[in-house]
Amino acid sequence: MKINKNYLKLKKNYLFTTITQKVQDFKASNPQREVISLGIGDVTLPLAPVVVDALRHAVDEMGHASTFRGYGDEQGYPFLRRAVCGYYAGKGVTLDDSEIFISDGANSDLGNILDLFADDNTVLIPDPVYPVYVDANIMAGREIIYMDGNAGNGFLPLPDKKADIIYLCSPNNPTGATYSRAQLKMWVDFAMENDALILFDSAYEAFVQDDALPTSIYQIENAKECAIEISSFSKMAGFTGTRCGYTVVPNALVRDGAALNPLWYRRQTTKFNGAPYIIQRGAGAVFTPEGFSQVKANIAYYMKNAKFISDTLHGLGIWHTGGENAPYVWLKCPKGMGSWDFFDVLLGEANVVGAPGVGFGAKGEGFFRLSAFAEHEKVSKAMEKVKKFL
Amino acid sequence: MKINKNYLKLKKNYLFTTITQKVQDFKASNPQREVISLGIGDVTLPLAPVVVDALRHAVDEMGHASTFRGYGDEQGYPFLRRAVCGYYAGKGVTLDDSEIFISDGANSDLGNILDLFADDNTVLIPDPVYPVYVDANIMAGREIIYMDGNAGNGFLPLPDKKADIIYLCSPNNPTGATYSRAQLKMWVDFAMENDALILFDSAYEAFVQDDALPTSIYQIENAKECAIEISSFSKMAGFTGTRCGYTVVPNALVRDGAALNPLWYRRQTTKFNGAPYIIQRGAGAVFTPEGFSQVKANIAYYMKNAKFISDTLHGLGIWHTGGENAPYVWLKCPKGMGSWDFFDVLLGEANVVGAPGVGFGAKGEGFFRLSAFAEHEKVSKAMEKVKKFL
Repeated sequence: MKINKNYLKLKKNYLFTTITQKVQDFKASNPQREVISLGIGDVTLPLAPVVVDALRHAVDEMGHASTFRGYGDEQGYPFLRRAVCGYYAGKGVTLDDSEIFISDGANSDLGNILDLFADDNTVLIPDPVYPVYVDANIMAGREIIYMDGNAGNGFLPLPDKKADIIYLCSPNNPTGATYSRAQLKMWVDFAMENDALILFDSAYEAFVQDDALPTSIYQIENAKECAIEISSFSKMAGFTGTRCGYTVVPNALVRDGAALNPLWYRRQTTKFNGAPYIIQRGAGAVFTPEGFSQVKANIAYYMKNAKFISDTLHGLGIWHTGGENAPYVWLKCPKGMGSWDFFDVLLGEANVVGAPGVGFGAKGEGFFRLSAFAEHEKVSKAMEKVKKFL
Repeated sequence: MKINKNYLKLKKNYLFTTITQKVQDFKASNPQREVISLGIGDVTLPLAPVVVDALRHAVDEMGHASTFRGYGDEQGYPFLRRAVCGYYAGKGVTLDDSEIFISDGANSDLGNILDLFADDNTVLIPDPVYPVYVDANIMAGREIIYMDGNAGNGFLPLPDKKADIIYLCSPNNPTGATYSRAQLKMWVDFAMENDALILFDSAYEAFVQDDALPTSIYQIENAKECAIEISSFSKMAGFTGTRCGYTVVPNALVRDGAALNPLWYRRQTTKFNGAPYIIQRGAGAVFTPEGFSQVKANIAYYMKNAKFISDTLHGLGIWHTGGENAPYVWLKCPKGMGSWDFFDVLLGEANVVGAPGVGFGAKGEGFFRLSAFAEHEKVSKAMEKVKKFL
């Protein structure tokens, strides 16, 4: 029997393991110092009260024969799919229930969606980017073409290299940079002209503050004919440990003579059995007026952090992007330092932890990510220390 | 861009869609008749009280900053992995935490595990069987070799054809037949001799009543060197809508020069982000003394149904298997009828719904599955009607 040899081509990704080890070592040698982490992109605020209520109610339902739920609707419960459609209607995008697939989070679908496509398609991936896009395609043995993010293009590369599958993430992880409508239109036009497919990761869409910026690729004309959108409640509603998301596969999306919606339906009904009923009820509560208001307050809390980080760096004259429409700030390491050198110095001198940019791709070298997901007091204290140190 | 053409080779599986349509039509024409469904293999009893309590407690934790949980441990929370190890210890099987991967149910892993293996491996699959094994391998373009289940071998085929990957399901869905230790040993020996890998689906292991029968493949010598076991809380604890399971990839399992445990770890950390914290807490409660006792009571409830169905068929002189160590009874359609003919007659005359065996594979033609997951009163009423009709 033969294993999938592509797995042997994967680079070991030690980013967060190495960060954790270095922080542990530092704390062991400096037990008196308070270390503040702006490293990992995980939320800290608890679930919104309206979500907790809905979860609790659903748990109660599962404990009584008359309200117990077994296998759920295959694409997700209609109440949640309809709520997602309503959310899109608020963005000016009309979707049908049948185009929504409830998932256990964006991460699974960003990888699993590739099942639908031949392994000899080429894939265009921004560098730096969320490492899952790269690894999932290495596993399938696909040729990966990188598009360079850099300070010159504000880490928002535009079409110049052809490929069959194009990953876009906006607002971007790790750079926090966000495509404008005009820029996304260039991508949609490019995909239409080249018979390519865009996989649009909109996991951070709820952090967009500027009304002129798109929060869904379907706000761009023709996108339903060339794009799949993959999103999540993880960052929008603090569901990183609660696990729910959704994927939109428009009925109008046809490639290589096949409608992709029924293919994905078949994939998911074969290799997935849906998100838990309890969790889907929690996610549904996000889309009530009370839910919106509560999760928006949480997002505002994080965005206050992001602004504070961005303002501090601005005051220090440090080039950076993100922080305005995303919970990440992406900065150029001062004095031409490498990503890991800056990590060590920042930890040693300011006792602040961030994520070295090179961990997100070769073009991230010399850059650094700070996350806005910590408590206000910690972010404020961290920025004081950064100011003193720089 | 090219789609994965293997998807076009999938046969449309209309089994449960057709059943639903036929039942709807019958009810519309016969509104006065009470139709009893022993068709779909979904549980009906609510979650055990101790599970509900654990879920409720975890929901509360998610609502407070001090107890909130974001991203969880990548293979699943240690409390749950340790509890699974404890469960196996009770079967006489020693496993390490690192060998357990918590999933969102057996269904996902039964398909996704195939990512680790080359597409040109051959696959041996019993016929009839749970349709996911076949469809997931068609999607990958693998050559499928079928092993025939029939009344002669009690629907428990033994090794005679070579293949790289072997799917076994015991107790079996749909036949309810359960391999003995001696039979499973033949499979393990065969896999060891032929460098093959067994994917052992033990989703129904908790229904085994006969202590002499194996409930895990690891109860067979050498199995850790040739088998992956995939299991679920779906039937054991009524989690079909709650979604949690586990997969065991032993550290001793090496194929084609590669240890499979780190490969699966890499797959899951790339394309999966874990089961929800809340749900893992619910699953953990199953393994407490109180939890065991409550889920065992539920299983006993279903097994009483199974015995009642089996006894009725026995009284009628109808050949069948299952029902003793599994919640399914698999019967030979009377008078040489085909599966769908018997479905129509049973619905029309006795107003009872079952699942035509041919829906689980060509060798299921002429057979029929009855599920024991309904309420006692319904099963008892259904058997009265069957007795009258036959």
